Amino acid sequence: MAISNSLTRLLGVEHPIVLAAMDLVADARLAVAVSQAGGFGFLGAGYGDAVWLERELANLGQAAQLQQPFGIGFITWSLARQPCLLDRVLAAKPRAVWFSFGDPEPFVRRVKDAGALAVCQVHTVGMALDAVAKGADIIVAQGGEAGGHGISQGSFTLVPAVVDAIGDKVPVVLAGGAADGRALAASIMLGAQGVVMGTRFYASVEAAGRDTAKQRIVTASGDETVRSIVFDISRNNVWPHPFTGRCLANTHTQRWLGRELELMRREDVIAEFARARETGDFDTAPVIAGEAVALIQDIPSAKDIVRRTVTQAERLLAGASEWITTERTAAA
Amino acid sequence: MAISNSLTRLLGVEHPIVLAAMDLVADARLAVAVSQAGGFGFLGAGYGDAVWLERELANLGQAAQLQQPFGIGFITWSLARQPCLLDRVLAAKPRAVWFSFGDPEPFVRRVKDAGALAVCQVHTVGMALDAVAKGADIIVAQGGEAGGHGISQGSFTLVPAVVDAIGDKVPVVLAGGAADGRALAASIMLGAQGVVMGTRFYASVEAAGRDTAKQRIVTASGDETVRSIVFDISRNNVWPHPFTGRCLANTHTQRWLGRELELMRREDVIAEFARARETGDFDTAPVIAGEAVALIQDIPSAKDIVRRTVTQAERLLAGASEWITTERTAAA
Repeated sequence: MAISNSLTRLLGVEHPIVLAAMDLVADARLAVAVSQAGGFGFLGAGYGDAVWLERELANLGQAAQLQQPFGIGFITWSLARQPCLLDRVLAAKPRAVWFSFGDPEPFVRRVKDAGALAVCQVHTVGMALDAVAKGADIIVAQGGEAGGHGISQGSFTLVPAVVDAIGDKVPVVLAGGAADGRALAASIMLGAQGVVMGTRFYASVEAAGRDTAKQRIVTASGDETVRSIVFDISRNNVWPHPFTGRCLANTHTQRWLGRELELMRREDVIAEFARARETGDFDTAPVIAGEAVALIQDIPSAKDIVRRTVTQAERLLAGASEWITTERTAAA
Repeated sequence: MAISNSLTRLLGVEHPIVLAAMDLVADARLAVAVSQAGGFGFLGAGYGDAVWLERELANLGQAAQLQQPFGIGFITWSLARQPCLLDRVLAAKPRAVWFSFGDPEPFVRRVKDAGALAVCQVHTVGMALDAVAKGADIIVAQGGEAGGHGISQGSFTLVPAVVDAIGDKVPVVLAGGAADGRALAASIMLGAQGVVMGTRFYASVEAAGRDTAKQRIVTASGDETVRSIVFDISRNNVWPHPFTGRCLANTHTQRWLGRELELMRREDVIAEFARARETGDFDTAPVIAGEAVALIQDIPSAKDIVRRTVTQAERLLAGASEWITTERTAAA
């Protein structure tokens, strides 16, 4: 059994489950593991660290299993500063390149001319219409539940609104808050063709993150994340409007939320934050994770995550018609 | 056909669709219309205006159609200041009383002793566990997409997390972001037994709101709402921590968001805000609506809203198994 739709056909995968292109966390090991499990793995090239990218592309190439398709994701406004990285990436023959946060127009044509798919992440209906007009092959509609950068409208209203706006021209994938088969089945009811999972795959064996970060994802409840610009300010990397970022609440966010203007001038705190990121002190450094932490209780392999998600979603979809009765209730 | 489950049986209704107890907007006319359509109507008694409550209870009583069950919703921390209102309400023999925002413990036993159901609205898993321990018969898990007061975690992660925490002891209803049959079908996939709809019913013929407010709901896109404490400050009614409120973005929120401390001292602005609420100047006064505005394009009758929602959800649930194929995709 498998859930088969326009997304799985376009990506050439068995399951409509996409690894979020999490900056540095989604390295070759994790991307290969997700693709081998029948999902679609993205490398998280993020801001575009050329050394990291060369290494991880080499690791991808060495994975004899490279029969499976893979993709590479960029922070678009950062890629625009070193556009040559796109040529390097296209030479590796990815199935898809994912653009998040910024105008994809300078890049979409080159991706398509190279025979790859252009995946565009959006956070509003307006952004979705714009991306489709510019040639997007797949739309990732990312709700504010997601970890990392984004905007605030939730997946639950964003996804159906995007589907209504762009019709069935381009498949829509839900991102933000998805961690299990319930989310996959629900996303299909909302009109999406599948899910992106980030935080769920961060808390996997293969993710390139510290075990202590993964453990915090397991421990945190859904009301222990925060959307802000505190972590951007703290690392001297303030993003363009209107993006903010979600991470786990910790001592640092408790201390600085609402005091952003003061924080900008506190070089001592910014230096302390840099040290904490190096040493993995997550009372100060951010664990970049979304509200899906509410649903994450363990650190399994990526393969187990894909398998569980698919099994649960298939069971829910197969049994969905059982909710409907032809009888009237007593009161009706 | 009907969607039948523990919620419809408990409430004695045909459809698992609940009218949000929107303060003043959900009056007897709207509550009766929703109940007559096969959903469950709540009066929105809000802060507990005794004159309003007497009038609307009388209107409910006059509705010869009072064969249908109905309920009454309170802001719990406000009810605690005039607890006698609960006796008045219980004398009207509601099927359910809904407690939002505050500790329901002083009231739950009285509701149950009167033979009614205690509905408790929660915004976190911790609140859900607490409400169940105190005797809640139904849990409304309200995500931050909702209009009016709440907290920020989204429906998409809150609902399954609450279901995991409380098991199948007590039915969970999704609130926040639901406006159509996609939301109802998705909420069932997430483990809920139905949906609360507020903003969707606000933009109905029967809702007790100004047409200009309803039109703004129709016009607004999903990224044109804002969660803040600006409207609470502006009417001198600051709520207990940790609640904030969502409304449509307008000139007033654009002007004052981030300047709350200044706003508190601006008596001229607070007076202007009071006048705007009286005259229905919604550039200044708030339209209290949630992210579901993304999905609302018209102002139909409550009956049409219920019918469309059910029809769409039934179609989606009945056809859900068609997403599953026994074939493998070419790439698998």
